[in-house]
Amino acid sequence: MRTVYVNGEFLPETEAKISIFDRSFLFADGVYEVTSVLDGKLIDFTGHMKRLERSLAELKFQFKPDIDQLLEAHRELVKLNDITEGLIYLQVSRGSAGDRDFAIDPQTPPTIVMFTQSKSLIKSALAERGQKIVTFPDIRWRRSDIKTTQLLYASLLKTDAAAKGKDDAWMVLDGYVTEGSSNNAYIVTKDGTIVTRELSTDILHGITRAAVLKCAEELQLKVEERHFTIEEAQNAAEAFSTSASAFVCPVVEIDDKKIGDGVPGPVAKRLREIYIDANRKMAI
Amino acid sequence: MRTVYVNGEFLPETEAKISIFDRSFLFADGVYEVTSVLDGKLIDFTGHMKRLERSLAELKFQFKPDIDQLLEAHRELVKLNDITEGLIYLQVSRGSAGDRDFAIDPQTPPTIVMFTQSKSLIKSALAERGQKIVTFPDIRWRRSDIKTTQLLYASLLKTDAAAKGKDDAWMVLDGYVTEGSSNNAYIVTKDGTIVTRELSTDILHGITRAAVLKCAEELQLKVEERHFTIEEAQNAAEAFSTSASAFVCPVVEIDDKKIGDGVPGPVAKRLREIYIDANRKMAI
Repeated sequence: MRTVYVNGEFLPETEAKISIFDRSFLFADGVYEVTSVLDGKLIDFTGHMKRLERSLAELKFQFKPDIDQLLEAHRELVKLNDITEGLIYLQVSRGSAGDRDFAIDPQTPPTIVMFTQSKSLIKSALAERGQKIVTFPDIRWRRSDIKTTQLLYASLLKTDAAAKGKDDAWMVLDGYVTEGSSNNAYIVTKDGTIVTRELSTDILHGITRAAVLKCAEELQLKVEERHFTIEEAQNAAEAFSTSASAFVCPVVEIDDKKIGDGVPGPVAKRLREIYIDANRKMAI
Repeated sequence: MRTVYVNGEFLPETEAKISIFDRSFLFADGVYEVTSVLDGKLIDFTGHMKRLERSLAELKFQFKPDIDQLLEAHRELVKLNDITEGLIYLQVSRGSAGDRDFAIDPQTPPTIVMFTQSKSLIKSALAERGQKIVTFPDIRWRRSDIKTTQLLYASLLKTDAAAKGKDDAWMVLDGYVTEGSSNNAYIVTKDGTIVTRELSTDILHGITRAAVLKCAEELQLKVEERHFTIEEAQNAAEAFSTSASAFVCPVVEIDDKKIGDGVPGPVAKRLREIYIDANRKMAI
């Protein structure tokens, strides 16, 4: 049984409970981060904590997280659950003011929840065979840059994609790809340029996205941050996605159309290796 | 201390807890209803349960609620908490599959939570003086017809409105009013026509909206279900909102501009009386 973290306490997962009046339960008033663990160490913890602070600030949380304390709690969870490879999930909820009220009481102490998931990340069958993608309109709220728990649509899409025998969903807004259900989306053009949508309120500001674009730069690959269409993606040399939990993951099909030769492409594969090597070394 | 309901049990509110893995907490994967209580009886319970069933079906919940059981639980809560006037909140969450996963496992048993709020509904200072409204762009996900717990934006708007010394927020999509933060929005034109946005995926299909439009029909008032702008609302004879908890509630100001004489108008006042009279008689 896992040991999880709730508001400073380490508890068996079956005893980890929150009030029915918690605002994440009633209003989706919470933000989260997922940090990968490789060799028992945290990947880009600082990046995740910076984004957490940004999400909290955008939602006007008065609470300022103690990053050193959170780091200690992450490490304690890794130790208690003997995680060599996997994920640590952290959610900061606005907490419970004891009753349901739309208006936010800034004095409410937050609820902080953390738990681990042991998982093979480097050796990934999906990364080896490549993802099959289906596309859906992006009808989410227009602040997808804030990492809130308003994940119902992404959940429904992931479930729909699986029902169709596919691996994931990419979303399309006004004719252009925004991102995947829980990852950023990329193509590689036939002249070798990596294209991904520019940062805005329409997409998550991926921690892995930033790291992978840095890797691409170091490899002297050309990067264009701009909109692209499904049609452009279907006719690209390669496609892939990035996320904290799946790193760089090749895409081999979009809406039943093969990308390139229908197998993971060399740029995605190379970026995956380089990203894992570089970030494994910097893990804390 | 209130007695609340969690999955078939009646518990003291401080003991009412759910798993940190509950999908409403992690993914906002839940729907809700709020039913008013007058004279210890439920207002339009059948309407709320029909909408609940629709919300669940739209989100592909396999769970079918037992409406008789829910009615019994509502009545038990009214009794246990001695509610003469107030609200009963009901949330059906997709529940907990024991771990976090975007993909929905249809076998997961739902979490059902209910609690009461004792509140003076008929005698309302706000209804007497009328609401001051501020407007904001409607950036919510584009399925506002499904009554999900993705209420973060509505919460932020209600909080912002209060910070500005106002009572509530109305939202505007592509130049036209959609609805209030937790209510449907109406104007009364200078020729006495009641105008409210037509039903679509852009607004909640208000139970009180349906009942109030029926009242208007019985009073032989002209009703137009169509888009209207903030400018049209500001220049209208009257404005008001409807919701299960506030019934018909007049609006006297929008974005610092007085509506009509700046006091609750006769149509809104009349509809409020008629609605309360009619629905009080039909309460169960």
